[in-house]
Amino acid sequence: MVKVKGKRKIVCVIMAGGRGTRFWPLSRNSRPKQLLKILGDHSMLQMTVDRLRKINFVEDIYIITGPDLEEIIKNEIEGISPDRIIVEPSGKNTAPCIGLAALHMAAKNPDSIMGVFPADHLIIGHQKFSSALRMAMNLTVGRDALITFGIVPNSPHTGYGYIQFDKRKETVPGKVYMVKTFAEKPNERVAKRFVRSGEFLWNSGIFVWKVSSILSAIELHMPELSQSLLAIYDALGKRYYHSTLLDQWELIKPESIDYGILEKSDNIYMVKSEFQWSDVGSWNSFFELSPKNGMGNVVKGDVIVLDGENNLIHSNGKLTAVIGIDNVVIINTPDATLVVSRDRVEDVRELVNLLEESGREEVL
Amino acid sequence: MVKVKGKRKIVCVIMAGGRGTRFWPLSRNSRPKQLLKILGDHSMLQMTVDRLRKINFVEDIYIITGPDLEEIIKNEIEGISPDRIIVEPSGKNTAPCIGLAALHMAAKNPDSIMGVFPADHLIIGHQKFSSALRMAMNLTVGRDALITFGIVPNSPHTGYGYIQFDKRKETVPGKVYMVKTFAEKPNERVAKRFVRSGEFLWNSGIFVWKVSSILSAIELHMPELSQSLLAIYDALGKRYYHSTLLDQWELIKPESIDYGILEKSDNIYMVKSEFQWSDVGSWNSFFELSPKNGMGNVVKGDVIVLDGENNLIHSNGKLTAVIGIDNVVIINTPDATLVVSRDRVEDVRELVNLLEESGREEVL
Repeated sequence: MVKVKGKRKIVCVIMAGGRGTRFWPLSRNSRPKQLLKILGDHSMLQMTVDRLRKINFVEDIYIITGPDLEEIIKNEIEGISPDRIIVEPSGKNTAPCIGLAALHMAAKNPDSIMGVFPADHLIIGHQKFSSALRMAMNLTVGRDALITFGIVPNSPHTGYGYIQFDKRKETVPGKVYMVKTFAEKPNERVAKRFVRSGEFLWNSGIFVWKVSSILSAIELHMPELSQSLLAIYDALGKRYYHSTLLDQWELIKPESIDYGILEKSDNIYMVKSEFQWSDVGSWNSFFELSPKNGMGNVVKGDVIVLDGENNLIHSNGKLTAVIGIDNVVIINTPDATLVVSRDRVEDVRELVNLLEESGREEVL
Repeated sequence: MVKVKGKRKIVCVIMAGGRGTRFWPLSRNSRPKQLLKILGDHSMLQMTVDRLRKINFVEDIYIITGPDLEEIIKNEIEGISPDRIIVEPSGKNTAPCIGLAALHMAAKNPDSIMGVFPADHLIIGHQKFSSALRMAMNLTVGRDALITFGIVPNSPHTGYGYIQFDKRKETVPGKVYMVKTFAEKPNERVAKRFVRSGEFLWNSGIFVWKVSSILSAIELHMPELSQSLLAIYDALGKRYYHSTLLDQWELIKPESIDYGILEKSDNIYMVKSEFQWSDVGSWNSFFELSPKNGMGNVVKGDVIVLDGENNLIHSNGKLTAVIGIDNVVIINTPDATLVVSRDRVEDVRELVNLLEESGREEVL
């Protein structure tokens, strides 16, 4: 029994197609957040790869991304062989992305257990992360389980989705629960209620399931997507694979895995996870996660602060000098500079939209 | 009588040696404030030249500057012949500078009336400026007068020196007074008292006197400087002029004309001037003098403000995007960016000192 357990393996897919507009002007179309060395010496994607490679029960790692990032990922990311990079023709949100990855895995081994990981999240606490993953992997045995990972909130964060779990439906005491509902990003009042209740954890966007389970769920809840995936599956390894993929992908409607599958299913489990997690979703969360200097500033590059507190200042290839400024994010790049109040970082996305509408491709 | 008056002329010298560190990073050692097109399409120095050239009783215009700016002034400033550029070997404050200019003028014509003008001040109201200058010029006739120009304050400015005039000693009713004292930049409380009193006007740093009068005053109050100037005078037009100038300049102690001469003299007059004047002494005065957009921002270059009021944003050759920032000065240049609270612009000078101490010549 111990021996069988020891042989159990998981195949991981890292979703690396995101654009990361909220990290403009450091993130660009050609270099989105997951490819930035934003926290330390390695890109977020490389950190995600390395995190999984260290786990002895990880059998294989795939990266799924768009055609625009394929080359840069092949060139920059170490530890992934080129034939493990799956290219989706365009971004259609997470359900089609996960479906495409699942059918590639099914073709190799229909009994695979699949783990899904965003490329651009921060995880601290490797042992706890590995334990949670092993627990989820084992939970798939003999179960058609779709497994999510809930993070115990350390604040009533309004930037995250929440998972409400059912305290009475405890699959592994204190560790695994059945999921009651998924909640979208709440307002502050609701978020506080969530956290007080003890029944709502942050939705980390990490999933584990058997390949067969997720493909069945897609067949059940997203039959059109399932049809397209079947057509693509039949073309796998054929010379017309690429044209079939392109044709089918045109037909596919964008949809999130949360809305398309998870909210409609009743076999959703949640591993109550103890590792530290952040989606590093804005300049402000980057600020909060980074070490501060004596004045509470996070600085990188050639920066002089004559006076000022709690700023994030990032200067790329030039001098940035600051006097008498507090609680501001300054991102200085060779062709574009952003100065944004720390309480307005969510609006960077709106700014990027505005730049798109104005045809400012040269800075996007 | 009218005819004689009409023939009276003034020779102007523009002091253009200043470094203008308070306009960093736009101003640099190689391009100080007077050479920036900071208010409009022409540099401050060119505006000063043009202002004087329009006046029909201006006979000649000299520029006095340092060796580092000689070439750029010869190349860029129109309307000044190269032999009217006087080079002082190094900056020794205004008294030696004015003394050197005066002896050059004395060599041409010892009866010259001399006007002294800073190169980097803003003057609005040409007719009023011209009238004040004519009044001062006429005041020198038959008098050993050292004439200053007082500007009626529109605020209790703490960045200016003040002239206290003697209301009882009215030389021209309502227009020209004897000067009682000069006051250094006051604190806010004192500045308010000055303005309330009606006896204190801003010291514009513009002067008119006969060349013979200022040289006599230097002889009386600054005998060492006078000795050096005499030695330089004797060398004028000789092949050893340059070496004499260098030798004597080494001996000269830096001193302002205010402290070295004016505060010690009792023949000081003040023309109560009606033109608008600013020394454009900081980014904040530049902000105040510039036209604002609907959100109260002064913007120049490629700037997007998603939300924000009362900012000065200057973007040179790249995009600057701002969200949720008020009352801030942002100066973005190709190799250095400054972000400073509008109430801290005076500290830019301290920043430049810091950069000097750190050996950051490449951005100075």
